[in-house]
Amino acid sequence: MTADPQAQGTALAEIDAFIERTADERLADYLEFLRIPSIGTLSQHDGDVRAAAQFLVDRLKKMGFENVEASPTGGHPIVYADWLHAEGAPTVLVYTHYDVQPVDPLDLWKRPPFEPVVENGRVYARGAADDKSHAHLHLWAARAWLETQGRLPVNLRIVFEGEEESGSDHFDPWIVANKGRLSADLAMISDTGFFEGNKPAITVGLRGLVYMQIDVTGSELDLHSGSFGGNVQNPANALATIIARLKNDDGSVAVPGFYEDVRELTPREREEFARMPLDLENFKHDHGLYELFGEPEYAPLERRGARPTLDLNGIWGGFQGEGSKTIIPAHAHAKVSCRLVPDMDMERTFQRVRDFVLSVAPPGVRVEINKLNDGMWSRTPIDHPYVQAAADCLEDVFGERPYYLYEGGSVPAGATFSNVLGLPVLLLGFTQPDDQAHAPNESMRLDNYEGGLRTLVRYWQKLATTNR
Amino acid sequence: MTADPQAQGTALAEIDAFIERTADERLADYLEFLRIPSIGTLSQHDGDVRAAAQFLVDRLKKMGFENVEASPTGGHPIVYADWLHAEGAPTVLVYTHYDVQPVDPLDLWKRPPFEPVVENGRVYARGAADDKSHAHLHLWAARAWLETQGRLPVNLRIVFEGEEESGSDHFDPWIVANKGRLSADLAMISDTGFFEGNKPAITVGLRGLVYMQIDVTGSELDLHSGSFGGNVQNPANALATIIARLKNDDGSVAVPGFYEDVRELTPREREEFARMPLDLENFKHDHGLYELFGEPEYAPLERRGARPTLDLNGIWGGFQGEGSKTIIPAHAHAKVSCRLVPDMDMERTFQRVRDFVLSVAPPGVRVEINKLNDGMWSRTPIDHPYVQAAADCLEDVFGERPYYLYEGGSVPAGATFSNVLGLPVLLLGFTQPDDQAHAPNESMRLDNYEGGLRTLVRYWQKLATTNR
Repeated sequence: MTADPQAQGTALAEIDAFIERTADERLADYLEFLRIPSIGTLSQHDGDVRAAAQFLVDRLKKMGFENVEASPTGGHPIVYADWLHAEGAPTVLVYTHYDVQPVDPLDLWKRPPFEPVVENGRVYARGAADDKSHAHLHLWAARAWLETQGRLPVNLRIVFEGEEESGSDHFDPWIVANKGRLSADLAMISDTGFFEGNKPAITVGLRGLVYMQIDVTGSELDLHSGSFGGNVQNPANALATIIARLKNDDGSVAVPGFYEDVRELTPREREEFARMPLDLENFKHDHGLYELFGEPEYAPLERRGARPTLDLNGIWGGFQGEGSKTIIPAHAHAKVSCRLVPDMDMERTFQRVRDFVLSVAPPGVRVEINKLNDGMWSRTPIDHPYVQAAADCLEDVFGERPYYLYEGGSVPAGATFSNVLGLPVLLLGFTQPDDQAHAPNESMRLDNYEGGLRTLVRYWQKLATTNR
Repeated sequence: MTADPQAQGTALAEIDAFIERTADERLADYLEFLRIPSIGTLSQHDGDVRAAAQFLVDRLKKMGFENVEASPTGGHPIVYADWLHAEGAPTVLVYTHYDVQPVDPLDLWKRPPFEPVVENGRVYARGAADDKSHAHLHLWAARAWLETQGRLPVNLRIVFEGEEESGSDHFDPWIVANKGRLSADLAMISDTGFFEGNKPAITVGLRGLVYMQIDVTGSELDLHSGSFGGNVQNPANALATIIARLKNDDGSVAVPGFYEDVRELTPREREEFARMPLDLENFKHDHGLYELFGEPEYAPLERRGARPTLDLNGIWGGFQGEGSKTIIPAHAHAKVSCRLVPDMDMERTFQRVRDFVLSVAPPGVRVEINKLNDGMWSRTPIDHPYVQAAADCLEDVFGERPYYLYEGGSVPAGATFSNVLGLPVLLLGFTQPDDQAHAPNESMRLDNYEGGLRTLVRYWQKLATTNR
């Protein structure tokens, strides 16, 4: 396409006018989508989940997308569609999901969750934010271009999942199986939101994961702690010893080489982290934390997004009931996981932890460690042109420069797009922080919705002229 | 009574003759006792447990004991009786129990467990060894004296429990409530047996116990390990750190002052320990141990009987299921207990562990430690005249000097007699090592039974002339 600023301006003006004049129709269409109780985890709603997929398929077909289908997965279908006629322009893989959380406890909802109402500039309904808002505004961003310009400025591949709230069991296999038709330049996940204070934000980092189990065995059966205490290595004590040696007193990980491949934050990244307002007292209060604790040389948001961790997720062995039982447990177990950041390798990290665990294992017990699963990190540099293009559009629409967020966890789709497809991943979403996703009285601010729509139509245009 | 050797010899000869001529009657009486299915844990056998108590009450009354009663406890009765007419002679508190273990798995029994048979010099039945053998031979030892001599050479207080196999819930309160009528010079517990190879043995030591729980709390609820990993002290990791610091690499306890009050073994005691044959390979095989591990400067039997310990009995926190769940547990817990030896104080030991736990607790979590229960150690010196008197009688009857055993555990009655009544405790029992107590096809060797009877009648005589 042309980079002629005047033509671009004209196109945008037409698109904004379309957005203005279709406001009522779009809201009605959004509410219709929200009336479908597509609760993916409850089998009595299987038909509703299919209906929500069909809602999307119908509209994608109508506006001119190709290869539109509710693609079977073994569970709920993935809605796929593409529009690939922007020759020379980048291809964006767009991800959202159309399934929603269950609604219990129902009695805490002020109105029925699938009878959406508009009040105080918000739409209240289950799924209004998470994640039907994004599915719907992606539909309308594409429609605004196609209906006013007869084209999209970029190539789009739509992947809308139906099992995000129920574990994404069939997502990875589907992506692997369909890898051949998913080539793209960028994966955009729209399932996140703005920073505290409803400040625009782009999520550019996700941490990876290596999840392990340590099993320590001392004897065939539990032993009487009187008869055998003093004569055997207690596997629960041995496990505690191993665990204790994995970390230093300051919270850092003691596994040799653990940090070797960690990419340090750039000065720009640290600057952006420092710019983010975080009220620590509110943060602790909101999340039921008593105290913060972590590597002293990093700020809390850096520790969350840009530093690897090692944490026990569970530990068990022996007697757990009320009162006392005088046994030496036959075996003890721990679930241990590491959050990974660039440029750590999942397998190499596992091997480092494994080798260290086996090297510090006390005598007299048998120690095993196995990897249960892993997930790739993803990080897109702030100064990546696609990121800056998104930042420009957000600033243009919302009037302020966005924050750059690094999630501490692994968004499964993000890991998959990064890992399986090798794509840079950008998480661009528009929900306000108090959206009450997963809780009663979920809502979506309509100004965030509309601003998101205007951001997306601008982003597609901007991407078309952005050099990679 | 007189210490006239000739009179003593005459009395013993008459008693031995009584033992000879009543062999059939005694065996029949023993089998009658064994036919009562006094399984204390199963309420459908409550009547049988009462019948077993009545069996004892009837016989104690008939032979001339006084204050005979099935004393109510809130659970199964304690059979109490006394004979206190041996003026100037010591008073012995005799303990056994008349309840028996359940019989599952029933299909592994060669004959019905409550239809005793004599075969190969053994009586096979549930309770034949544990502990009706001892209850019954105590009855007959007293009867042999009373029926042939019209008197006992010592004063006896009989305490036969009915809840030993079901937790002894009412034993301590009963002892405390009846403390006034339980004055004695020695507590004799008959609920143990001979050493490997059916070698006569006296148990002179029991370890005490302090049982604690450590609770570590990090946040109000479980946290997402991605969102919070790196910013909070993980309470399960913190617990492991605490536990690890409680012990040294060689298996010794790292709590300051822990060993301060430990009474070292005398040269005589170490000599007796060294005399005991223990085949370590068999020992490991018999108990399903893979390896022995403990303080290197002590032998395994010394570590079991004469050294204190610290062991985890259980640990738990967070996710324990299959697969992975990425949480930072809100809290984590451990059951920790110490086995105590002379002259450790229960409360002081608890305080030492508590203070150390709190001093090594990492920052960022809340740590609590509470004592759940405790039990007193007991040790009677090998050269105590009452012990040597028992050793003489065993040698006289069985032809060899006994071994002196130190149990690693706490026999509840032993701790109670030591703790509440302040008595020296001697554990004198006669079951053979392969009695299969608690298992199918339990048996009692009749030669052990008869030897036990002859040992007891001699011991009462010997005690009467033993200077304390």
